[in-house]
Amino acid sequence: MGVDRANQRPVLAISMGDPSGIGPEVTVRALADRALRSRARCVVFGSIKPWQAAAEACGIEPYWWQCADQEALVEAAHVQDVVVVDVAPDAPGPGSAREATKAAGSASFQYVERAIEHVRTGKANALVTAPINKAAWALAGHGRYAGHTELLASRFRSKRTRMAFVAPQLRVMLATAHVPLMHVSESLTIGRVFETIELGAELCAQLGIASPRIAVCGLNPHAGEGGMLGEEDGRVIQPAIRLAQEQGVDAKGPFPADTVFNAALEAPGRPAPQFDLVIAMYHDQGLIPVKLLAFDSAVNVTVGLGAIRTSPDHGTAFDLAGRGVANAGSMLAAIELAIRLASARADEGVSCPRATTSADRPGK
Amino acid sequence: MGVDRANQRPVLAISMGDPSGIGPEVTVRALADRALRSRARCVVFGSIKPWQAAAEACGIEPYWWQCADQEALVEAAHVQDVVVVDVAPDAPGPGSAREATKAAGSASFQYVERAIEHVRTGKANALVTAPINKAAWALAGHGRYAGHTELLASRFRSKRTRMAFVAPQLRVMLATAHVPLMHVSESLTIGRVFETIELGAELCAQLGIASPRIAVCGLNPHAGEGGMLGEEDGRVIQPAIRLAQEQGVDAKGPFPADTVFNAALEAPGRPAPQFDLVIAMYHDQGLIPVKLLAFDSAVNVTVGLGAIRTSPDHGTAFDLAGRGVANAGSMLAAIELAIRLASARADEGVSCPRATTSADRPGK
Repeated sequence: MGVDRANQRPVLAISMGDPSGIGPEVTVRALADRALRSRARCVVFGSIKPWQAAAEACGIEPYWWQCADQEALVEAAHVQDVVVVDVAPDAPGPGSAREATKAAGSASFQYVERAIEHVRTGKANALVTAPINKAAWALAGHGRYAGHTELLASRFRSKRTRMAFVAPQLRVMLATAHVPLMHVSESLTIGRVFETIELGAELCAQLGIASPRIAVCGLNPHAGEGGMLGEEDGRVIQPAIRLAQEQGVDAKGPFPADTVFNAALEAPGRPAPQFDLVIAMYHDQGLIPVKLLAFDSAVNVTVGLGAIRTSPDHGTAFDLAGRGVANAGSMLAAIELAIRLASARADEGVSCPRATTSADRPGK
Repeated sequence: MGVDRANQRPVLAISMGDPSGIGPEVTVRALADRALRSRARCVVFGSIKPWQAAAEACGIEPYWWQCADQEALVEAAHVQDVVVVDVAPDAPGPGSAREATKAAGSASFQYVERAIEHVRTGKANALVTAPINKAAWALAGHGRYAGHTELLASRFRSKRTRMAFVAPQLRVMLATAHVPLMHVSESLTIGRVFETIELGAELCAQLGIASPRIAVCGLNPHAGEGGMLGEEDGRVIQPAIRLAQEQGVDAKGPFPADTVFNAALEAPGRPAPQFDLVIAMYHDQGLIPVKLLAFDSAVNVTVGLGAIRTSPDHGTAFDLAGRGVANAGSMLAAIELAIRLASARADEGVSCPRATTSADRPGK
């Protein structure tokens, strides 16, 4: 029996994030968008009490189904537009603590593990993760993962993942991510920079950019100014770009990082961008422009997992949580991008889990 | 005899920059603004042939006086609105080379030396420098100076100078400047960060900001995330901020560098800025936001010299030079800021060189 394409909506596994943070609020608010829900089926791995508290704080009427974390129940509820799975029933609620706690860290780690499992076993097409707190993970005994990306790389057994940021104005990919600044230089090898460019081209293809033009940042001030201000630009980055060019990738650089983003910027009143993607060498080099230009609309994409994963580009914002005031723009954009990437993959023949029926019924 | 305040316009010593670059063009174009000229007297140290070529490329009629580089002639011409001093008569012209050359490096170095001398001997109140090329300086045997800032620090015998950038949207000061990225960590000491904050407060005072609110960036991703992503934020930057606070400076941080600039941004539709100045730890951390937001309007200010020095925040742009198309916005802003800072100083009792008369007479 063939798959009914009209009914073939992608399934997203969504982790609710640190339950003391704004994750529950931005998720409950993003999925309250009925048009968005009609384009996907969403399984939220979280805790029901904080979820309900978040909905109440936001003044949102129940639109979801909910169930205990038992495989049979999840399977049965899976046909709904939105199902909230009660992974850690005793988790603390939004705004319950203004700092990282062991209880919240333990809960948010379990959400991510369950959501990953759902994708790995083929029950979902894409993963969307709300923000967690790394210190809370450490308190709960999961400090060996510096963040989502490292946990994902381990679970998906991927040796070459990269963080990328997709915003309406700018696309950026990082060669290194959560590395102390003084260790960035030793982390950069020709291979690592080359792989980043390759994965960048892959991301652009997934986004429907046919012949991506990729700009690569230098590491040092003025991209090393011919070796006078540092030698990695010539010794590491330049050969990596040449390798990529030999593979047919339209990559250029290394460019001084303080001006290259202007050439990749898509904004009213600006000249047309010369580049589709900028490869940054380290966290702040790439994130400063992204957050400055697209604070509420940038989406974090993990590339190289062999699975689709997006997330909003903000943190847990403990100080905002529980008041129903957090901006859900970035979470909404993360869910939309996950749907877009999953649908593009489905068009390539990677199938979506079978949909049976779906209705918009209340959660309690 | 008292000084005639109405006649007391500040005198600016302006170096023309690399004569093969866009320095001559942006200077000749900026000073073509009659209203600007009426607020200062300007002595341009450069070369007459490239200056004239630049004026021709820009379609600008002569408005300046010109003279050979002999002290008596310069003194005599000094009363004019704009005097161009022929420091290196055989210098190459704009667009004559698409790269750094020894001849241009030698000339541009001499311009800066003469302009500095003019300020040091009290004949000018402020220094404005058009862009030079560091590789050209090295070719001409001046490679021991990584740039203007280092030469200025040496000539003014200043042990603690810092680069700052003043734009309508944002003010940024750098704790370190032309340092290879891998050496930034070892360059940062509590003393260096503390001094930067102190000089930042000094700059704000000069700009007329009575009680400046200063934000200090972290060095590492997420400002080190409590030590998990680097330890300089807690070990070096935090104690420096505490020291500054003990001196009565309203400094806060260290903040994650990828979000702090949003809180200091003055732009339509944005909430009022929470900070008047951001202290960045290294070149690209501070320059990426400045160039992204204020590409043509940011001014580079050297703080801590005991003299006023401004410059545009762009480079020589050899590829643009000679065509009369370079944007003079940043040079214009640099000259305006120099006038503003010199006038503020004059109000504090530091006098301007005596003006005699001035008229707008042609240059040849």
